[in-house]
Amino acid sequence: MAVVVHKYGGTSVGDAERIKHVAKRIIAARQKGNDVVAVVSAMGDTTDDLIELAHKLNDCPEPREMDVLLSTGEIVSSTLLAMALKNMGQDAISLSGQQAGIRTDSVHSKARITGIDPKRIHDELDKGRVVIVAGFQGISDCQDVTTLGRGGSDTTAVALAASLGASICERYTDVDGVYTADPRLIPDARRLSEISYEEMLELSSYGAKIMHPRAVEIGQVYNIPILVASSFNENPGTLIHGGEKMEIRNKVSGIAHDFEVAKITILGVPDKPGIAAGLFAPLAKAGVSVDTIVQNSSQDHITDLTFTVTKSDLGKALEVIGPIAKELQAREVLSDSKIGKVSIIGTGMLNAPGYAARMFKALSDAGINILLISTSEIRITCIIEEDKVKDAVRAIHKAFEMEKD
Amino acid sequence: MAVVVHKYGGTSVGDAERIKHVAKRIIAARQKGNDVVAVVSAMGDTTDDLIELAHKLNDCPEPREMDVLLSTGEIVSSTLLAMALKNMGQDAISLSGQQAGIRTDSVHSKARITGIDPKRIHDELDKGRVVIVAGFQGISDCQDVTTLGRGGSDTTAVALAASLGASICERYTDVDGVYTADPRLIPDARRLSEISYEEMLELSSYGAKIMHPRAVEIGQVYNIPILVASSFNENPGTLIHGGEKMEIRNKVSGIAHDFEVAKITILGVPDKPGIAAGLFAPLAKAGVSVDTIVQNSSQDHITDLTFTVTKSDLGKALEVIGPIAKELQAREVLSDSKIGKVSIIGTGMLNAPGYAARMFKALSDAGINILLISTSEIRITCIIEEDKVKDAVRAIHKAFEMEKD
Repeated sequence: MAVVVHKYGGTSVGDAERIKHVAKRIIAARQKGNDVVAVVSAMGDTTDDLIELAHKLNDCPEPREMDVLLSTGEIVSSTLLAMALKNMGQDAISLSGQQAGIRTDSVHSKARITGIDPKRIHDELDKGRVVIVAGFQGISDCQDVTTLGRGGSDTTAVALAASLGASICERYTDVDGVYTADPRLIPDARRLSEISYEEMLELSSYGAKIMHPRAVEIGQVYNIPILVASSFNENPGTLIHGGEKMEIRNKVSGIAHDFEVAKITILGVPDKPGIAAGLFAPLAKAGVSVDTIVQNSSQDHITDLTFTVTKSDLGKALEVIGPIAKELQAREVLSDSKIGKVSIIGTGMLNAPGYAARMFKALSDAGINILLISTSEIRITCIIEEDKVKDAVRAIHKAFEMEKD
Repeated sequence: MAVVVHKYGGTSVGDAERIKHVAKRIIAARQKGNDVVAVVSAMGDTTDDLIELAHKLNDCPEPREMDVLLSTGEIVSSTLLAMALKNMGQDAISLSGQQAGIRTDSVHSKARITGIDPKRIHDELDKGRVVIVAGFQGISDCQDVTTLGRGGSDTTAVALAASLGASICERYTDVDGVYTADPRLIPDARRLSEISYEEMLELSSYGAKIMHPRAVEIGQVYNIPILVASSFNENPGTLIHGGEKMEIRNKVSGIAHDFEVAKITILGVPDKPGIAAGLFAPLAKAGVSVDTIVQNSSQDHITDLTFTVTKSDLGKALEVIGPIAKELQAREVLSDSKIGKVSIIGTGMLNAPGYAARMFKALSDAGINILLISTSEIRITCIIEEDKVKDAVRAIHKAFEMEKD
């Protein structure tokens, strides 16, 4: 029998009725002749409630304790789903991350999976059972519970699919696929039937809140097709894969946008080797993720350096940068938190000329000023004013006629 | 350093404020120069809430899944208490039953502890940490989470105290000790400063809802003194122990009572060997706990047999007994669920004459009819009508002048 891995998000298992609904979907998948392993998130707001409770006791709770606390949320939903399946006549068993053989490093709250021993899962599948695995968690070499951080349950699911040699990882939430743009902004945004791993990575990294890049990366490395679909309807969803049809498709797959951007500009930095490292290494050490970096061309060995961070990291970034800028005798540090970004993403876009020009023209026609530009092989990103982001997405979606298949 | 084991019940860790309060008590115990291991129950109604959720998905949830589900309650409170301690500057770590080395058999929902490997606890204590252990749970040889059933967290605490060679097990709830009778019935009931294991066992078994007999038995076997006290005040509590002072004390330590009693009488049973076994073995198999058994003296090889069960087991007991009584050609099966019991308990009572007579006279003076009598070495129990139980406790408490020390 082929193994398929399902993954159900927090809203999909949000209450008893929804859990029963998920159980029916799993039984349907089994009746198609597959062995099913299902990974679940914690029910609805469980994780937030537990975090709130922890913060009543400790402003800065120990990550090791936090991991143990939060891991209970997924354990609860995994047992409830197993109970629902058994009540419907389908034998099932819930396994914690530890029981499922998910070993991680010891970096609490953002552990990385170091290996999976799928023996117990295989044993349970061999008994004719559906195996429900508590997502988001594993066990360290010290036998302590760890959690995988953001995108954790997706990561569990794709990693398990790879380890079990599954034919597919089907990931169900309340979103029924990947769209050409956020459907809340663009009502006629089109659901993509397929997308490549690379495009999905760029979409995720550049603000489309669909799936954490981590899980997509594992899918790419082990070549596991990932279906993104809704557990609330029967729409076919979007298949993330590495198939051959990619090259011949429409070059622009989707538009990503992000409001949570802030910009820091350091004016009058000496233009000599080592400056960038001296600036960005301390930021990385402070846990600030730097996104777009732009350095203007140098005049008289003095240059201006601009980079973006998330809005929530702006304060921390300025604290780190302040003393360094002073030491470098930079002229001034400026910051702006009222900015956002918009990106077009598509495989092979840079090999086909005209996409960037078409994007810039669309923005210009809409009266939107471009503050910074950054590109990758399959992405073009423009940093613009925050209150222009929605207009920009609409203008670009229209310019590329993305509502059409 | 001496190790002391604390155990905090569900109300003692019912919310964030109470958890902080418990943390302070633990720190105070450490400042007296002890290593502290604290066992916690689930917060307040957590367990009931989880049971309700499970029953929405399955009328009869698999015990294995139920155990995993319920075990999360104690894990949550253990991590929160560890966080509270760290926030107050006391290093601490939470351990699940598995991490604390608590191995059990595989009888889910009422597992028995088969052994404890306290290595990790010792390691953590050696690091200067307070160790918080999630009560009520262990791990089977199949690496599945088990729960210990009723009195589970108390059992965890006393068993850990034995395994760690602790000097004492201090068990904190919202009740500040063992009283001569239920203080809700007898306002001037007196808190006992000490009580023997045997007396405590009889009190617990005969209706005083203070501590499950299981935990007391372990205390007795390993000679661990158990302090029963409240986490909400500084009253000294009651010490359960096997000390030598026992013999010289007041012979009647306490009065237990129970409303949850039902009586079954089988009339006209052949009086021959094997009859009792033929009746009570099937009841035991059906999980019905039989309490008092009284067989009247036989006339013409025909006898009447009466026994008591809990009210909640009456229906099941009658179902089991019906066909057997028919087979035995018994004349009739009668049942009465409107009864209760009252017991006096005291070490060495039966060696000092007059106690039974004094109890019976107190009941008689209060106009209370005795339906059945049962005795052990340290207990005299009268089965009476349910609506006379309160009066009976008051009359006996007064007759023995138990309010006086």
